Amino acid sequence: MTNTVLVIGGGPAGLEASRGVSDLGNPVILVEKNAFLGGNPIAERYAMLTGPVFRDAEEAMQDLIKPVTDDSNIKVHLSSTVTALDGELGNFTATITSESGTTESVTVGSVIIATGFKHFDPGYTSGAQQHWGYYEQPDVLTLTDLEKMLKDKNVVKPSNGKVPERVCFIQCVGSRDRQLGNQWCSKVCCGIACKQAIEIRELLPDTRVFIFYIDLRAYGFWEDELYWRAQEQHNVNFVKGVATEVIKRGDKLVVKGEDTTMSRPMEVEMDIVVLSVGMEPSQGTLDMANMLHLPLEDHGYIKTIGGPLNTTQTERPGVFAVGAAVGPADLEDSISSAGAAAMKAVSALRKLKLSAVAGD
Amino acid sequence: MTNTVLVIGGGPAGLEASRGVSDLGNPVILVEKNAFLGGNPIAERYAMLTGPVFRDAEEAMQDLIKPVTDDSNIKVHLSSTVTALDGELGNFTATITSESGTTESVTVGSVIIATGFKHFDPGYTSGAQQHWGYYEQPDVLTLTDLEKMLKDKNVVKPSNGKVPERVCFIQCVGSRDRQLGNQWCSKVCCGIACKQAIEIRELLPDTRVFIFYIDLRAYGFWEDELYWRAQEQHNVNFVKGVATEVIKRGDKLVVKGEDTTMSRPMEVEMDIVVLSVGMEPSQGTLDMANMLHLPLEDHGYIKTIGGPLNTTQTERPGVFAVGAAVGPADLEDSISSAGAAAMKAVSALRKLKLSAVAGD
Repeated sequence: MTNTVLVIGGGPAGLEASRGVSDLGNPVILVEKNAFLGGNPIAERYAMLTGPVFRDAEEAMQDLIKPVTDDSNIKVHLSSTVTALDGELGNFTATITSESGTTESVTVGSVIIATGFKHFDPGYTSGAQQHWGYYEQPDVLTLTDLEKMLKDKNVVKPSNGKVPERVCFIQCVGSRDRQLGNQWCSKVCCGIACKQAIEIRELLPDTRVFIFYIDLRAYGFWEDELYWRAQEQHNVNFVKGVATEVIKRGDKLVVKGEDTTMSRPMEVEMDIVVLSVGMEPSQGTLDMANMLHLPLEDHGYIKTIGGPLNTTQTERPGVFAVGAAVGPADLEDSISSAGAAAMKAVSALRKLKLSAVAGD
Repeated sequence: MTNTVLVIGGGPAGLEASRGVSDLGNPVILVEKNAFLGGNPIAERYAMLTGPVFRDAEEAMQDLIKPVTDDSNIKVHLSSTVTALDGELGNFTATITSESGTTESVTVGSVIIATGFKHFDPGYTSGAQQHWGYYEQPDVLTLTDLEKMLKDKNVVKPSNGKVPERVCFIQCVGSRDRQLGNQWCSKVCCGIACKQAIEIRELLPDTRVFIFYIDLRAYGFWEDELYWRAQEQHNVNFVKGVATEVIKRGDKLVVKGEDTTMSRPMEVEMDIVVLSVGMEPSQGTLDMANMLHLPLEDHGYIKTIGGPLNTTQTERPGVFAVGAAVGPADLEDSISSAGAAAMKAVSALRKLKLSAVAGD
């Protein structure tokens, strides 16, 4: 048997899991499909991470990346994927295939899957989803599109390059929705919309910002840190309403729907419409579940056993899953579950060794 | 230096942290103020824990308790508190004082604080809070009062012992509120109210159940597992509204407020009113922060450093805090952060030992 732990995915959860395992003394092999570490915050060029204090995402991610790249006990494979995995706790054989096609076979004792989520594609299927006009209207963006603009400190209306007078967010695009898909709540989009609204108002004080929501799910401390702050300090307008359609009228976008608080139809002109797209299991998460024969839970994420009392153990002994590979997750969720899985991946090997010594 | 880890608090987070540390090979001293393990789910006699499947809370908690009590590597001190702690990472001296007054001094290498939360007391201060009538009206309950009734499968109107015809929940009592106190969102109360509403409807099919909410924060999978299920399978009535007063009229309670969706005043008769009380740091959490000179964050919980990228490290090296000691937390949050802290409490000692060996 070997003490080495294989971590699949180099986003926040995978980085934290790798550092945790190595800090406990076990060697780590970290496999990341991109040519760089950092996951979505780096790949999608996030602007700010949020806590009570906004923090530059690229800089903050270095806090997770540097301990991993500096650690000789962690071997990082970039531009690589795990293409086969056989065996059992204490003795798995994994095949790591690089983009260039070279393969390497490694022996590992346990596995942590940190392959995360992807953002819902608002134009993914035809028909029903087209009313958002994401692929037709240049001024219809997603949260990730806007995040990149905020990172560049250049929020303009894509169709004409001008500063927008009015920007709105439409919440729950690809969340809580049986028609468009994905009936779960993606957990973080309300907080992210509040964060981005604040950032727009700081960057462009003359731009009016609206958030159309069903329930504003700024749970925990996000309530006052993001939701109240957006309203009170930055005059962001929150409208409980259901947007149903975005159409083009002249130079403007028109959002149609219902203002449910005022009980009346709503038709408002905007320069930019931001679709608050939800989370789905990433292709990597689905691929790993398939390759490892791991059952999915009802929403299509990797299933963990034991409900809330065991957040990272999959049905296969020695294989753990963390962060957004097991469901919608905020950054705290990802960091905590990654740390917990590091503990479990190491202790499972320790227990196996003890029972081998005891001759069980 | 010693490898022993002190865990303070024997609720879900403290139990998971204890098991995690011991599974990594380090001895654990677990100190619990009650005469039993299990924390609030046992002390407050919770009925069901929720996941996709409801599970008897007492039985589920045994999954966490039994590995701890069966483990000779974990020494449990019941009916005890930590009354002094001095020293530093690798060499803390803790005084454990039992209810009977005997004290014991122990040496530990690192510390995990899992002292959790308490439920908001809806009659705690005079004046403003009295309009809920919690201490005046026997038929005004809290979530925890109702939880005990559900556990006993005996939900009756306390004033006359009869089966209630109409029950309502008032959300955000002691949450999101500058007047009554606690401006944060307590995270779990929306989900718990949905869960209890389902349980009432299963137990008493003729009882009508209403939930008055500001935003229904059934985040993640709770959206369809609890919120939709409550509406579609159990006909629970959700009303977006602000309740402002509960008064007695004859045999009934009258809830006054505003139905914000219908934009009209609301005055509805109920047999039982359930106040969905929020979370506050427990006295134990405040005591430990004070004794250990740990700074509190803006809401009064123990402050962790590093924002979302470090969920358990306090400002004092070697001291970690988990679960609801650091903010409102659901069971998943508590279990994940406890596991992460177990990893960190052990790896901090390992690193210290390595640097001592290296002569740093």
